Amino acid sequence: MRFSFHTAVIALLVALILPVAARAAPASEDGYDLWLRYRPLDKTARASVQAQARSIVLAGEPSPTTRAAVEELKRGLAGMLGRDPAVAARPGDGALLLATPARLPELAGATNALRGELATLGDEGYLLRQTRIAGHNVTLIAANTDIGLLYGAYAWLRDAATGAKPEAASAPKLQLRMLNHWDNLDRVVERGYSGQSIWDWWALPDIKDQRYTDYARANASLGINGTVLNNVNSKPEVLTAPFIAKAAAVADVLRPYGIKVYLSARFSTPLELHETATADPLSPEVRAWWQRKADEIYKVIPDFGGFLVKANSEGQPGPQDYHRTHADGANMLAAALAPHKGIVMWRAFVYAPGEHSASDRAKQAYDEFKPLDGSFAANVLVQVKNGAIDFQPREPFHPLFGAMPKTPLMMEFQITKEYLGFSTDMAYLGTMFEETLRSDTRTGRTVAQTLTGMAGVANIGSDRNWSGSHFDQANWYAYGRLAWNPQASARDIATEWAALTFSPDVRVTAPVVDMLMMSRETVVNYMTPLGLHHIMGTGHHYGPAPWVDNLERPDWNPVYYHRADSKGIGFDRTASGTNALEQYAPEIARQYADPHTTPEQFLLWFHHLPWDYVMPSGRTLWAELLARYDKGLADAKSLQSRWAALKPMIDPRRYREEEQRLARQVYNATLWRDACIAYFQSVSGLALPPGVQAPAHPLAYYQALRYPYAPGNPK
Amino acid sequence: MRFSFHTAVIALLVALILPVAARAAPASEDGYDLWLRYRPLDKTARASVQAQARSIVLAGEPSPTTRAAVEELKRGLAGMLGRDPAVAARPGDGALLLATPARLPELAGATNALRGELATLGDEGYLLRQTRIAGHNVTLIAANTDIGLLYGAYAWLRDAATGAKPEAASAPKLQLRMLNHWDNLDRVVERGYSGQSIWDWWALPDIKDQRYTDYARANASLGINGTVLNNVNSKPEVLTAPFIAKAAAVADVLRPYGIKVYLSARFSTPLELHETATADPLSPEVRAWWQRKADEIYKVIPDFGGFLVKANSEGQPGPQDYHRTHADGANMLAAALAPHKGIVMWRAFVYAPGEHSASDRAKQAYDEFKPLDGSFAANVLVQVKNGAIDFQPREPFHPLFGAMPKTPLMMEFQITKEYLGFSTDMAYLGTMFEETLRSDTRTGRTVAQTLTGMAGVANIGSDRNWSGSHFDQANWYAYGRLAWNPQASARDIATEWAALTFSPDVRVTAPVVDMLMMSRETVVNYMTPLGLHHIMGTGHHYGPAPWVDNLERPDWNPVYYHRADSKGIGFDRTASGTNALEQYAPEIARQYADPHTTPEQFLLWFHHLPWDYVMPSGRTLWAELLARYDKGLADAKSLQSRWAALKPMIDPRRYREEEQRLARQVYNATLWRDACIAYFQSVSGLALPPGVQAPAHPLAYYQALRYPYAPGNPK
Repeated sequence: MRFSFHTAVIALLVALILPVAARAAPASEDGYDLWLRYRPLDKTARASVQAQARSIVLAGEPSPTTRAAVEELKRGLAGMLGRDPAVAARPGDGALLLATPARLPELAGATNALRGELATLGDEGYLLRQTRIAGHNVTLIAANTDIGLLYGAYAWLRDAATGAKPEAASAPKLQLRMLNHWDNLDRVVERGYSGQSIWDWWALPDIKDQRYTDYARANASLGINGTVLNNVNSKPEVLTAPFIAKAAAVADVLRPYGIKVYLSARFSTPLELHETATADPLSPEVRAWWQRKADEIYKVIPDFGGFLVKANSEGQPGPQDYHRTHADGANMLAAALAPHKGIVMWRAFVYAPGEHSASDRAKQAYDEFKPLDGSFAANVLVQVKNGAIDFQPREPFHPLFGAMPKTPLMMEFQITKEYLGFSTDMAYLGTMFEETLRSDTRTGRTVAQTLTGMAGVANIGSDRNWSGSHFDQANWYAYGRLAWNPQASARDIATEWAALTFSPDVRVTAPVVDMLMMSRETVVNYMTPLGLHHIMGTGHHYGPAPWVDNLERPDWNPVYYHRADSKGIGFDRTASGTNALEQYAPEIARQYADPHTTPEQFLLWFHHLPWDYVMPSGRTLWAELLARYDKGLADAKSLQSRWAALKPMIDPRRYREEEQRLARQVYNATLWRDACIAYFQSVSGLALPPGVQAPAHPLAYYQALRYPYAPGNPK
Repeated sequence: MRFSFHTAVIALLVALILPVAARAAPASEDGYDLWLRYRPLDKTARASVQAQARSIVLAGEPSPTTRAAVEELKRGLAGMLGRDPAVAARPGDGALLLATPARLPELAGATNALRGELATLGDEGYLLRQTRIAGHNVTLIAANTDIGLLYGAYAWLRDAATGAKPEAASAPKLQLRMLNHWDNLDRVVERGYSGQSIWDWWALPDIKDQRYTDYARANASLGINGTVLNNVNSKPEVLTAPFIAKAAAVADVLRPYGIKVYLSARFSTPLELHETATADPLSPEVRAWWQRKADEIYKVIPDFGGFLVKANSEGQPGPQDYHRTHADGANMLAAALAPHKGIVMWRAFVYAPGEHSASDRAKQAYDEFKPLDGSFAANVLVQVKNGAIDFQPREPFHPLFGAMPKTPLMMEFQITKEYLGFSTDMAYLGTMFEETLRSDTRTGRTVAQTLTGMAGVANIGSDRNWSGSHFDQANWYAYGRLAWNPQASARDIATEWAALTFSPDVRVTAPVVDMLMMSRETVVNYMTPLGLHHIMGTGHHYGPAPWVDNLERPDWNPVYYHRADSKGIGFDRTASGTNALEQYAPEIARQYADPHTTPEQFLLWFHHLPWDYVMPSGRTLWAELLARYDKGLADAKSLQSRWAALKPMIDPRRYREEEQRLARQVYNATLWRDACIAYFQSVSGLALPPGVQAPAHPLAYYQALRYPYAPGNPK
């Protein structure tokens, strides 16, 4: 009897569990969930997380932002624990409690130890603490504001998913943590390698894609608090009523997540819309137009962030068209926005024909902006690219950092890999961002310490996995984490990302982190080693083209940058050359004046050296250059084999997708190595040392390659 | 003791089942799965399906195609039954058996009753039968070829999911069942309203998106057997080696699914690639070039389908540039392809400046092609649009159908809704396709009976749900089902689609089918009632613009088509006008010569009539026109409220997404109704009858509306 009951029960178990289990297989991992996957935890982790979150409790009345926090906690716990969590009205033992001093007077109590700590965390910080409140042991997510609670919820979920101990207090070090979308109104993304723009301007405002919400979740999880929806190469239409209504619809979706909407403004907008007779920033008519426009925008987007402006650069209109300065232009817009607390982010990437183009384009931004330090309005920030040329695989930090102490600065990083292999080549940019942020300006501050904000040119598109490749999600992630804390470690961030994205199992994270950490240097080596720069294909910026010398403007040509001839190679930016070096602090200028004390990685950025210059390795410059190209290719192959070794540990679809890309990367690395060696050999006339393999094809083969319809290059 | 065991078991059940059940919730319905959702069946249906498929058995050795069939059956059964099905090597009772006569000699046996039936099903047909084989009761999926088995597997799954009895025999009525992608090599889709092209030419051939496989599955499930990857407005590069390699990679993915790859060829390709001095189809150099090109293609795509060509139309090059005929051009390409069994699909959509443009553009295709009947090579098909103008919401069937008895014809339908509201307005095209296919040409055949193949201009894009809106998936589906069987019923297809896409519950299918069935007529009414046509906005083709009269060519202007003035409205295509009517069979020409015997829906297509012409309703033409616009708007609102009533029955995400679109449709319907009434009133000078609401704005308001960056309109 007992036996048969037993049997029946087992049959029941089989009948009930088997079918459900089959259905329970997680949906195919396609990358859409990013680092917010919330996959089931292993037993030990599950017990620990379960103990911290027997119920979710929000102190006080819900707001749109706390609703988002609670929803995310529910989603995360359901995924990680495999069952829907309880939501309770008041804390019991084991509650996960979200509270601000305003929501829970106890937190504000004079005797409460947390009070002092909270006071240091500002409007956006949070703390996670296992503590006793109202007679119960709870896990507390505390902050001064609802947005702090949301950030705290994401932090707690991150800790839960990675197995970190949820004991932390954190506040952002930068005020502005922005994404810049170089997205055109027709959904073509300039330098976008992951599909179309996610902003479907045509369908807006009536149709709001689910992606907008998931975009907000992903960015809030990193602490991003602003986004510029449209390309810096802006169009006047974006400031017309229909497009403002569309932007307002996006703003409504992003608002609960603490993300403000900004727009790129074309400086000549009123003139091009035929609503003024000029765009002169000192014209009263123009000033009044912008004031009215700002009022119009704030009527429908009350928390509108402000404008990002690219002016007098690459053909864009600007104040210099009227013999006014960048400050005149920025301050005019700033005046229109100030009553609404909006800001202007004015880009320092100025790059136009003229004297600098002929001598050294790298010097132009410093020369134009340094003298304006102190003359910008209080709500203007100057946004400076990380280096003085243009998002190259490696550049020394921009000399404007540290040089404008009276002006709040934004760092502009490029997350999308315009010059680092699009979305096919693996290149973790965390190390690149870290390298720049930690650079010592020798003005008493690291680059990171000179910043008020950070902008990242987004690598986000309509591809299912958002970023084109799964590894490129790490660049979005690393950017966001560094914008929150520019002193964070690129390796720690990589580890966290790998744990969230693939698995917290160290057999996965350790090798994935190794791949990430070596990947950018790999690309530098097979593209532009030893300080070489800007030797890529014209227009699309794909592949090698060091031979190009026939473009209209001198500084469009790769030969302008590498200056290789039969005697040597490199751009002399010392006193004997363009003296761009003098734009840096004296200590740096002194150190880099001598090739022997210049970091090897910047050698040919600052110096023109003979081919037989002896490198620290003991090799000649020529042999060293070849060795770097060879190392780049070897390391690309190593990335491929390291991934292959991970096959049993990675879900099949994502494994296969990255496997295809890593194979393409080996092709790209071979192409770069072979084409560059073929070209530089044709210039140097030097033989390949023994052991260095000759390029697979003659130089003419590489020169004849064409890439019609390459992505990211709008007509 | 027993009690505590019992308790332990219940605790175990709770512990095991609860968490799994929570995880088992199906992934959010986002439309990606199309009609291949395979969601859990209800209990009765599950039992029935389970009994038919205790195991899956393939007779004989697997091939890539049978592997696809078995994989799909496994996926479908796992989803519908909630557990992984068994796959067995030999049939037992209840097996689902896939067999061809070659795979299972028993099927070929002289005494086998199925033998005769199979013989009628050709290379692509299949039969589903519950029968006894090798001493076992099995559900048989039988065919003469592996591709027939794949089609049979999809048919069986469709029956299982909708509750239909799996007893059927079916073979396609048309040889060629094609999709035409108007997809450019930069991934912009001409007249595409669902994101970018799914063909990522840049990433190919190395990176093969998972979508390619899912595209193949979806199309194979409908019986589509060919696809033209690129736009008919083609570029020469698509026939260069790198792009042929990319097309080959796609062909490799599609091949197991019975789908051949074709390319649109630009007639002047060899000239534009600078490989010949002319593109004259009679030049030996040109003929040799195309022969070499065909050989090159077939080397990497052994089953390449052939070329689709748009020549001497809308600025495309063609044989007439060299004073040769369409037949000269088509036959030259056909000669190059014939040794490889490739075909040429030569489009009859010819539309160029000249005599026809000035008088009646509708007449040009017939005038150019009818005289060529009989002069095309055996492997040439002429591809004719459903109507003589251009995919309007309603057109009478094209007079070439029935007029070229010696030439195999393809029907060209447009699945993408260039003129029917993009992907925002709901318009089920099954009824439109059916209307054309069932039209009697009065040459002894319906339009359907004149066809050898069918081509559908795809509405497929990179949007998660493939088609921009969920309802637009029904148009892809209906097209495919009608290409298999042009005599099928649009209503039956709608029912099947609704059951597969939402739920087989009649409380869902009945109202959804009602919505689908009324939707296209709704659009006709609020856009172009009573035979009006081509009165849409310039270029982007969005919204009303009946006033446009200033475009360079006469037949680009809406006023050319409606010819409204103070006296009347309509295009006189009778003998007193352009006599386009004489291109039809005499019986039709006679019937349509008199407005009183012309179907009301084509009235203003064939006749110019006074505003006070008395309609069958007893109303004047003016009042009838207004009534139609009002009905269109009222029906758009009805679609909205019908969907709202379905809210409890539809998953939240898809409900919300269509809710947003139906709201936009009411906006669009209002815009069309108001703008057209405002315009026609300005022309007719007539008052609005009592009860007809005046447009919300004056005419000038509608005329001033602009739609920058509208999708689908490549520069």
